[in-house]
Amino acid sequence: MGLHMNGSAEEVSYAKNSSLQRKAISLTKPLRDEAITSLYCNTLPKSLAIADLGCSSGPNTLLVISEFIKVVENLCRELNKKSPEYKVFLNDLSENDFNSVFKSLDTFKENLYDEMKTEIGPCYFFGVPGSFYGRTFPDKSLHFVHSSNSLHWLSKVPEGVDNNNKGNIYHSSTSPSNVLKAYYQQFQRDFSLFLKCRAQEIVEGGRMILTVTGRKIDDPSSKGSCYIWDLMTIVLNDMVLQGIIDKEKLDTFNIPTYFPSPSELKREVFEEGSFAINKLEISEVNWNDRDCGEVLDIESEMSKSIKDDGYNMAQCIRAAIESLLVCHFGDSVIEEIFYRYKNILNDRMSKEVTKITYLTLLLTRKP
Amino acid sequence: MGLHMNGSAEEVSYAKNSSLQRKAISLTKPLRDEAITSLYCNTLPKSLAIADLGCSSGPNTLLVISEFIKVVENLCRELNKKSPEYKVFLNDLSENDFNSVFKSLDTFKENLYDEMKTEIGPCYFFGVPGSFYGRTFPDKSLHFVHSSNSLHWLSKVPEGVDNNNKGNIYHSSTSPSNVLKAYYQQFQRDFSLFLKCRAQEIVEGGRMILTVTGRKIDDPSSKGSCYIWDLMTIVLNDMVLQGIIDKEKLDTFNIPTYFPSPSELKREVFEEGSFAINKLEISEVNWNDRDCGEVLDIESEMSKSIKDDGYNMAQCIRAAIESLLVCHFGDSVIEEIFYRYKNILNDRMSKEVTKITYLTLLLTRKP
Repeated sequence: MGLHMNGSAEEVSYAKNSSLQRKAISLTKPLRDEAITSLYCNTLPKSLAIADLGCSSGPNTLLVISEFIKVVENLCRELNKKSPEYKVFLNDLSENDFNSVFKSLDTFKENLYDEMKTEIGPCYFFGVPGSFYGRTFPDKSLHFVHSSNSLHWLSKVPEGVDNNNKGNIYHSSTSPSNVLKAYYQQFQRDFSLFLKCRAQEIVEGGRMILTVTGRKIDDPSSKGSCYIWDLMTIVLNDMVLQGIIDKEKLDTFNIPTYFPSPSELKREVFEEGSFAINKLEISEVNWNDRDCGEVLDIESEMSKSIKDDGYNMAQCIRAAIESLLVCHFGDSVIEEIFYRYKNILNDRMSKEVTKITYLTLLLTRKP
Repeated sequence: MGLHMNGSAEEVSYAKNSSLQRKAISLTKPLRDEAITSLYCNTLPKSLAIADLGCSSGPNTLLVISEFIKVVENLCRELNKKSPEYKVFLNDLSENDFNSVFKSLDTFKENLYDEMKTEIGPCYFFGVPGSFYGRTFPDKSLHFVHSSNSLHWLSKVPEGVDNNNKGNIYHSSTSPSNVLKAYYQQFQRDFSLFLKCRAQEIVEGGRMILTVTGRKIDDPSSKGSCYIWDLMTIVLNDMVLQGIIDKEKLDTFNIPTYFPSPSELKREVFEEGSFAINKLEISEVNWNDRDCGEVLDIESEMSKSIKDDGYNMAQCIRAAIESLLVCHFGDSVIEEIFYRYKNILNDRMSKEVTKITYLTLLLTRKP
């Protein structure tokens, strides 16, 4: 379906425009630390296998890994134990820019060694291409699985939606009811398959921490996180009216995301049955949260634009969905789409409080 | 040092110009099959971990893997055993084009399933970036290690060679004796470190099969495989004389390869001590061996040039060392270098029998 985060060579790279996603990762640090601590202290393993699912190829990719290792190393020192060996598995679709992740590993390791000051356990890194909606790892090979900002991407646009959702680009409040049903059922199929696969790959007692863009309440077409698509819908419909985009093109464009509610997530976990829910956390992040711009400092030119909230937000979304839009509408309209999108974002962000909801699930593989 | 095989997007890609290397791989198939058969039958494992070290990113990358899986699957059928799970580790330097390897995996798997007709064991693929002259895999995690056409690359140009090998680009017969000594000692250090690392990573009874470009006799500056560098030396010196390349540039250019003799290989294995030598095979391949052109058929334009032996050979060498030459001499002289190289190759190949020597070592990890 053409979905992949923009690679490092692309103008609007995911690497430089994933600050919202980073915010989600930093919000859930306390929960992750708690999970890692309990995992380590309960088992005192000699070898620890951690996987990041949907790792992408930006500064966020290795952030969780370095935090993980630091927590474990500090525990080893406190408990006077020998450091374990770390096996780090970085997974994403095969279209992901693994080359740039791999090229950054030496610097990553050097920084980690510098920061820790004393010796740490040996770290082995593996790139694992493939969809996590299928078996990706050998049986019982993982102790800790992390996934952030990936599981709201469905494996595909649900069948039967293509031509039945005219003028819309997801299950909005104005979509026919069968469109919403199709999206929800696709989420159910995908998420339960995800759980079934991970259940075979994670050892007993192993932990899994999943952060998804979701919603607080049960009405699936409620404003919340979907608002980013609502505004994109307005932009695209305007461009149809002005003859810049074909009506037919828009009528057949649908984004394969589903932003689940807490109870929808829980239901699938219960039904699949292999995991116990330790915690479900709901967090909200303002679109123009100042922290959102943090990562942009890596490029001075980008940091100038930090004051332009709409621009930042548009770039974050662009890095994530540009490949989908190009695939469907072609190259030529992309600049115009995001120029308009930036403007509408700026307008709304100056008038309303606009938030994204993140849901974080902490699970333990049952015996 | 800038060494990597050309990626798939480069004009002279390693993918389309690695037929000599493929020839080396096909020559050693009987030996590999024998090793795999004995490994499988002795242990009947439920899970098999195989690593290809220096996998590069061409059609050769997955050839050995698919053969490995087919041999094991056929054994399973004969012996009426359940197929094992396969863990396939593809290793190369982090500059390697892993993206294109990963993108080819789905097609690879489909073809393999089609060919085998019935169901085969689950296959999990991992990209592993990093130098094999260092620990790359966790303790006792591999059953079978393969490396072809990689181990004659040293980890670096030996120290002290840089300015002492004027007019030469490797340890040729006209190099000072300390240059030859430095090259040999670098080979010893690198190869024994390689063995030491693999000894920790391979399980007891595990096998390792290594094919390197080498030489038949003990004199390290004898013609043999080094002849490809002799001819490159002539080209570069001519270009210096004609003022196209700076003399100083050539004087400081050295290729980090060492083509060992059978006894040099054996000596390091004995001294390291962790592996038993099951076999050492010597094979010779004519530069213009017709089989050498086989892979070129994947691009019709390329196959037209199959009659031009010098061109084929030059392309094979170019795909392997272009990055080194560009790094040292710059982009602008590359076309000229390989135009001249092609001509000199054609000339010599029409007048002499020109051969490359491959040495293949089959080793077993001692208990």
